[in-house]
Amino acid sequence: MTDTILSHDDLTARVSRIFQRAGLSPLQSDAVARTIAAGERDACKSHGIYRIDGCLRTIKAGMVTLDAVPELAPEDGAIVRVAAHGGFSNAAFELGAPELARRAKELGMAALVINDCTHFAALWPEIEALTAHDLAAMAMCPSYSSVAPTGGNEALMGTNPFAFGWPRENTDPYVFDFATSVAARGEIELHRRAGTPLPEGWAVDADGNPTSDPEAALNGAMLPFGGHKGSAIATMIELLAGVMIGDLNSREALDRLGNFTLLPAHGELILAFDPARFSAGREGNAMARAETLFDAITGQGARLPSQRRFAARKRAMAHGITLSAEEIAHLDRLEERGLDAVA
Amino acid sequence: MTDTILSHDDLTARVSRIFQRAGLSPLQSDAVARTIAAGERDACKSHGIYRIDGCLRTIKAGMVTLDAVPELAPEDGAIVRVAAHGGFSNAAFELGAPELARRAKELGMAALVINDCTHFAALWPEIEALTAHDLAAMAMCPSYSSVAPTGGNEALMGTNPFAFGWPRENTDPYVFDFATSVAARGEIELHRRAGTPLPEGWAVDADGNPTSDPEAALNGAMLPFGGHKGSAIATMIELLAGVMIGDLNSREALDRLGNFTLLPAHGELILAFDPARFSAGREGNAMARAETLFDAITGQGARLPSQRRFAARKRAMAHGITLSAEEIAHLDRLEERGLDAVA
Repeated sequence: MTDTILSHDDLTARVSRIFQRAGLSPLQSDAVARTIAAGERDACKSHGIYRIDGCLRTIKAGMVTLDAVPELAPEDGAIVRVAAHGGFSNAAFELGAPELARRAKELGMAALVINDCTHFAALWPEIEALTAHDLAAMAMCPSYSSVAPTGGNEALMGTNPFAFGWPRENTDPYVFDFATSVAARGEIELHRRAGTPLPEGWAVDADGNPTSDPEAALNGAMLPFGGHKGSAIATMIELLAGVMIGDLNSREALDRLGNFTLLPAHGELILAFDPARFSAGREGNAMARAETLFDAITGQGARLPSQRRFAARKRAMAHGITLSAEEIAHLDRLEERGLDAVA
Repeated sequence: MTDTILSHDDLTARVSRIFQRAGLSPLQSDAVARTIAAGERDACKSHGIYRIDGCLRTIKAGMVTLDAVPELAPEDGAIVRVAAHGGFSNAAFELGAPELARRAKELGMAALVINDCTHFAALWPEIEALTAHDLAAMAMCPSYSSVAPTGGNEALMGTNPFAFGWPRENTDPYVFDFATSVAARGEIELHRRAGTPLPEGWAVDADGNPTSDPEAALNGAMLPFGGHKGSAIATMIELLAGVMIGDLNSREALDRLGNFTLLPAHGELILAFDPARFSAGREGNAMARAETLFDAITGQGARLPSQRRFAARKRAMAHGITLSAEEIAHLDRLEERGLDAVA
């Protein structure tokens, strides 16, 4: 059994075919496939083809509107709103992003609200779509309840990702994208399977006591990163990207799903800022000043985030994306059997 | 020697007189005094009268424009810009806040940029000024270099505070405000004086090695909260609230000052969001849904941030603010001797 090398385009087309075979419209399938192929391209396996099964399970459970056509609401101040109408977030973001960029340039800043979507995507592809327009961007969304607030013992918040990007000239943007939990649920699951204890500070058991037992953690709750500060940020995300945009928060998303094996439905909030507009009339060039800051970070041996992803991307675009024989066999099975391939 | 109890108004007037005695205009003095009195009122001693000496030292060093009159720039999309013209941030914020609120309600969201100010204030008074307008708000600013990026060994970022608020009906708002460093520089200084070791993870020495020695930490750098995630947020604040708004970042602010005993000059970025506008047309009432979230936090024994401040405020407004005889004597000395009272 040998590895297979696919081009980025071929992988995208292949993943889209799998979703179309499962009944998802070409519009939805293509957008989902672009995101998944971007994950593989960037060696971000946790958001690559690994995600296909969860998407298909969620489709099979009837939680996704297969032919949803996202819809842009009429202009409303600095708020650009896209109704995903029960489809995946990906197509909704693709529809809203150019309008968000346009409004952010008109007003200096604008917000994209996506409502009623099924969500599995990393936020960095969206951040990068906006830095490509020379905008800074911030994105956040709830997930489903799996994280207890600091001092508590019950899962309430989700792993609530928070992402940010800053555009750079002639090089990859500055981008970070992280869960506001210490770890991802999948990482705890990996420890359970491997029979290894969890690092300190990852989780509490059902009584709210710190635990290193993966089983107890899965029955208890994960913890936010950074103690009460991370807990506060996760709460802010529930408020801004759940309650404020009139969409499900993490507890409501879990209640709707009933379990952790499907993808949550909720909304998303993306803010875009035009540095040229904000810095207009002030001393110094914002792009050049940011480079001085980045140089001061890398010059002392610290790393900028996302560099591993960008290096992997460069390799993938030059030499293709390598999938194992097992991964290819899995894609074959998904393409042949469609929804019958998943439980 | 007994304690003295002052009303909130009397303390505000008293602090303002000290600043006017030091040559600061009534406009500037009153705004600074309101912030400092709010700190004492809320038993937030680190932002109370303790701050007066630093403000006076900075005035004495000629770093503050004593009669600066903040100026609101002409309307510019979603950006409300106030030039502090070398005065303190406080008067500039007071000028800009009503305009920020107006624009946020017109557009759904807006940003207040304060430029060229001397800054010592906690961010929560500003956040609360906006939640009082039924707005959600996010505020951030650089400081001066004292925090190394994760993986580095040189102070680059400041303690860069990040604050957020959500309006609540008939009760105090949800508000958090924290440094993005693990600890404040002052806390390390307290350990040095007490001869106690620093907790793990607070700081690195000049070679970038973890240290529990306060002296080595003061010669090295503090660390961001939450590892690489907090480091990323601190970097985001340098970019958005320093570079993007065309104002000094933490390294530039320290370069300008030359030392840590004066207050830094830089800018500030405050975002305001109108939940009523964002949630319009969506199911459920945003204010009520937020309460359900807060109940789920407190119902499991976790705390909402700022509750100790609000309890102290209630006591202070009912019974006055208690200052020790030593504190009163210090205020007397500052009022009598003006700038001669500080080094």
